[in-house]
Amino acid sequence: PRRIRAVALPGDGIGPEIMDAVQRMLAAAGARIDWEECEAGAGVALPGGLPGETMDAIASAGLVLKGPLQTSLGGGGKSANVTLRKHFELFANIRPARRLPGVVTPYADRDIDLVIVRENVEDLYAGIEHMQTPDVAQCLKLISRSGSRKIAEAAFALARAQGRSRVTCASKANIMKLSEGLFKEAFEEVAAAHPAIQSDHMIIDNLAHRLVLSPESFDVICTTNMNGDIISDLTAGLVGGLGLAPSANLGAGMALFEAVHGSAPDIAGQGLANPTALLLASLMMLRQAGLPSVAERLEHALYVTLEDGKELTPDLAGPTGIDAGSTSAFTDRVIS
Amino acid sequence: PRRIRAVALPGDGIGPEIMDAVQRMLAAAGARIDWEECEAGAGVALPGGLPGETMDAIASAGLVLKGPLQTSLGGGGKSANVTLRKHFELFANIRPARRLPGVVTPYADRDIDLVIVRENVEDLYAGIEHMQTPDVAQCLKLISRSGSRKIAEAAFALARAQGRSRVTCASKANIMKLSEGLFKEAFEEVAAAHPAIQSDHMIIDNLAHRLVLSPESFDVICTTNMNGDIISDLTAGLVGGLGLAPSANLGAGMALFEAVHGSAPDIAGQGLANPTALLLASLMMLRQAGLPSVAERLEHALYVTLEDGKELTPDLAGPTGIDAGSTSAFTDRVIS
Ligand SMILES: CC(C)[C@H](C(=O)O)[C@@H](O)C(=O)O
Ligand SMILES: CC(C)[C@H](C(=O)O)[C@@H](O)C(=O)O
Repeated sequence: PRRIRAVALPGDGIGPEIMDAVQRMLAAAGARIDWEECEAGAGVALPGGLPGETMDAIASAGLVLKGPLQTSLGGGGKSANVTLRKHFELFANIRPARRLPGVVTPYADRDIDLVIVRENVEDLYAGIEHMQTPDVAQCLKLISRSGSRKIAEAAFALARAQGRSRVTCASKANIMKLSEGLFKEAFEEVAAAHPAIQSDHMIIDNLAHRLVLSPESFDVICTTNMNGDIISDLTAGLVGGLGLAPSANLGAGMALFEAVHGSAPDIAGQGLANPTALLLASLMMLRQAGLPSVAERLEHALYVTLEDGKELTPDLAGPTGIDAGSTSAFTDRVIS
Repeated sequence: PRRIRAVALPGDGIGPEIMDAVQRMLAAAGARIDWEECEAGAGVALPGGLPGETMDAIASAGLVLKGPLQTSLGGGGKSANVTLRKHFELFANIRPARRLPGVVTPYADRDIDLVIVRENVEDLYAGIEHMQTPDVAQCLKLISRSGSRKIAEAAFALARAQGRSRVTCASKANIMKLSEGLFKEAFEEVAAAHPAIQSDHMIIDNLAHRLVLSPESFDVICTTNMNGDIISDLTAGLVGGLGLAPSANLGAGMALFEAVHGSAPDIAGQGLANPTALLLASLMMLRQAGLPSVAERLEHALYVTLEDGKELTPDLAGPTGIDAGSTSAFTDRVIS
């Protein structure tokens, strides 16, 4: 099998533990990855937490597996996560939500298998904000036709590549007729060029409502940045929570994979962290890098481990916590 | 018992049917209400759908029960719902989500009883939008300290009045540090003045996640307009859907009660509409108007009817639909 080269950013809090666990599982599954480990996050004595060497290594490798970064790291108050997305123009944020075996949720009997394709650089995340008076704040929501078309194209390309049949656009175009309206309009232009894939539109609040009522009825959802932020946490919750939620940030010639959860400083260093989200992110990376069979093998091992239900990390081990395992015990089970 | 005076706006689509049903139930329960029925919605030959006489009647009565209004009624593309909220400065939108007996949901075993207190006039709903170029749209998100303090005060006042112990502020202050940050800051100022009630803060995406995982752990949630729009549809879904979701819009000396759902033109006039959301809204109105015992009686009748599960409207009657009733059959059961 091919060798690939990737940057690893272990990041803050539980990041180093789960990165180590995932690298062990990938190696055991036979993934041949040359890791370049780089510093990022609160440990870096630099506002923003992203040294130039790290940025250079990312630019050169084009493939990144990233642990959680603390949200506020100085640097003008900008989030390091957002900085990475902007700097490398990672305009597409792909967030699958799929039912996992053995994970107890109110929806365990529903066949949930959806993907959120979230626009990742525009909207309220443009960071254009000011105080008009000491008592009035304004923030600019920015939507461009080209940005909206790009994310719609990404959604239809993903649907085609994964053999999915429907893409649902979600917006608040009934209230923000120009900005969210432009997003919807661009989506419809792109949809018209993909007649083989069904498309429809839902108002974002109604989407939140329908996702809770019948998540199994959704396939691909394409939406703006802020809407996607909220909705993707909702869908992560439907299948068991952020501890199980991977994400891909895609740009031109650049792909960064991450767990959606935070750095969980309260449990860091105690061997309690669940590496599943980062593992699932690494499987998305393997598939992106053209190593689907290794991904398949490891996914199978994860599913069997979850289904067995032994030595799961405490977040998954059920209310009694009896039989809970550590990060490394769980990792060993997946490997064996 | 006291007589009260209220404006009824039956509105569009299923509006007249459910308004009629609710007025019958209120009368049967002994509520003495002088209704002034006014025109609003698509039937009105006027852009915006809100005649001057209707606005005058509302201003004079100060108490309104409103059916659904079609979202787009001309009038510069403004939503009639939003126009009413703005014109009468109905700054607080109160949306309870409470488990109902007999309603089958994935959360039927959870004791859900929460209230969303949504800021109702600021934020992205200010309606300040323009096209910067034909391909770039901008929308202004506006947050004021006074508006934020008012809604926080409303949330704590509601918590106190209803004997609730905790108010959670939800914002995206980690990204929009000035605008959502101002909302959070104002909330914390107000919270400090209410030491008897617990308070905390959650990032809005994490709130969406936690609401799906453990809705029973929430009490009062105070949030900005757009966040509240999405989150309140989510919580409506948790307890059975928009067909069961009431809402109060409160301002100074003015209170407007409505169902959260739309006008459902596809089923209008067929006797299929579920009047429960508007009924629950009318119970909020009775309590607001100082008639809690009538509200109690009618609520009890509704709960018994739902629990019996006979002649429920088709949306509640389960997949087979056998035993489903019409709007009027359901109404008669509640009355009897
Ligand atoms: C950490 C934060 C900047 C980020 C976001 O708001 O996008 C997170 O919530 C996410 O969804 O990846
Ligand atoms: C109909 C629409 C204007 C409205 C809103 O966006 O507030 C609705 O979704 C609601 O929540 O009452």
